[in-house]
Amino acid sequence: MRIDIVSIIPELLESPLNHSIMKRAQTKGLLEVHVHHLRQWAVNEYGQVDDYQYGGGAGMVMMCEPLANAIESLGRDRKYDEIIYMTPDGKQFDQKTANRLSLGENLLIICGHYKGIDQRIRDHFVTLELSVGDYVLSGGELAAAIVTDAVGRLLPGVLNDETSALTDSFQDDLLAPPVYTRPADFRGWKVPDILLSGDLRKVEEWRYEQAVLRTQERRPDL
Amino acid sequence: MRIDIVSIIPELLESPLNHSIMKRAQTKGLLEVHVHHLRQWAVNEYGQVDDYQYGGGAGMVMMCEPLANAIESLGRDRKYDEIIYMTPDGKQFDQKTANRLSLGENLLIICGHYKGIDQRIRDHFVTLELSVGDYVLSGGELAAAIVTDAVGRLLPGVLNDETSALTDSFQDDLLAPPVYTRPADFRGWKVPDILLSGDLRKVEEWRYEQAVLRTQERRPDL
Repeated sequence: MRIDIVSIIPELLESPLNHSIMKRAQTKGLLEVHVHHLRQWAVNEYGQVDDYQYGGGAGMVMMCEPLANAIESLGRDRKYDEIIYMTPDGKQFDQKTANRLSLGENLLIICGHYKGIDQRIRDHFVTLELSVGDYVLSGGELAAAIVTDAVGRLLPGVLNDETSALTDSFQDDLLAPPVYTRPADFRGWKVPDILLSGDLRKVEEWRYEQAVLRTQERRPDL
Repeated sequence: MRIDIVSIIPELLESPLNHSIMKRAQTKGLLEVHVHHLRQWAVNEYGQVDDYQYGGGAGMVMMCEPLANAIESLGRDRKYDEIIYMTPDGKQFDQKTANRLSLGENLLIICGHYKGIDQRIRDHFVTLELSVGDYVLSGGELAAAIVTDAVGRLLPGVLNDETSALTDSFQDDLLAPPVYTRPADFRGWKVPDILLSGDLRKVEEWRYEQAVLRTQERRPDL
């Protein structure tokens, strides 16, 4: 899979994309991530990509032309499954969307800044508007990193042990059960006996019960 | 405000914390972010901080002792408003929580990895479990970066124009209205006349209507 990200602060994404699982995914050749500086498609020699908003008010707006140029230029060399705009008023990004996107070949992600991008780009170019949650960030870069990470780790071969991803929270609409490791007694706080019993069937039953219980308590909406 | 982050991959957080608004917040002395490597509190000379999970199954668990040591060591020098664990089964992080946290003085954020941290740390040390969304990430680092960014940008003086944050999505339970900038006609796609009218009262009315409309269409739950 290839993910292209268009940003006015590409350097912000350097370390999240070059460590841990994302690094491994790229080293193994399973994921290619290219971060493009929007300024290369700027409208003038000053590298302008934003301007005051029509109607007045605080905050700049990212202009149509650089974004249209970026999308069209990158789109000439490959067909994108989705042209994604990260925005707090987008569709809530969730595990199901991550699963779906992980089946694609090429994704283009546009990072907004300031008050956002000109609405005409959203109307005429963007195919999917995604929000990573109900909060406002300084820009779309961290949101793009989240989508890249959540999708990239699902690509076959990226995680060492594939069952590890399948038992994560959300993959079966259940939160994950509590986990424990050594020591069995830490400052008098003990690991549940059943996990020490060696009875794998009972352990599985307990985990399922705990997952259901935790989901009911914390996220009855799932 | 001071934010301490405990992680097994501190270098992953370098670039998000050192560019753009987060850099400015720190340069101005409004925000201090310290990322600590959990290994300095490891249980042995090999730097061990994780172990197999009790009851078997794929994925490692982060051990009690290094985390307890980290929390206690950092807590000796300051009082934390919250000890936060980033986890997909936590409370949904949202703008209201960001607003509340931005009023604190010291936050400690623990980044999980693998199958998560030993449940006993959650039971006995953590005061707030937060999820940035319904998806699974490779680790808690990007989630911690999201909280740091969403909270940090709210600190007075961080954004150049304070009204800019107040008119963002969610601050009034409304999504933001569409925004436009020059040119007024881009490839035949035009900016709504009202935004060019110069009638500021009408512009404000239109923006409010559009915000309500967009919220009804996209997020009736708000």
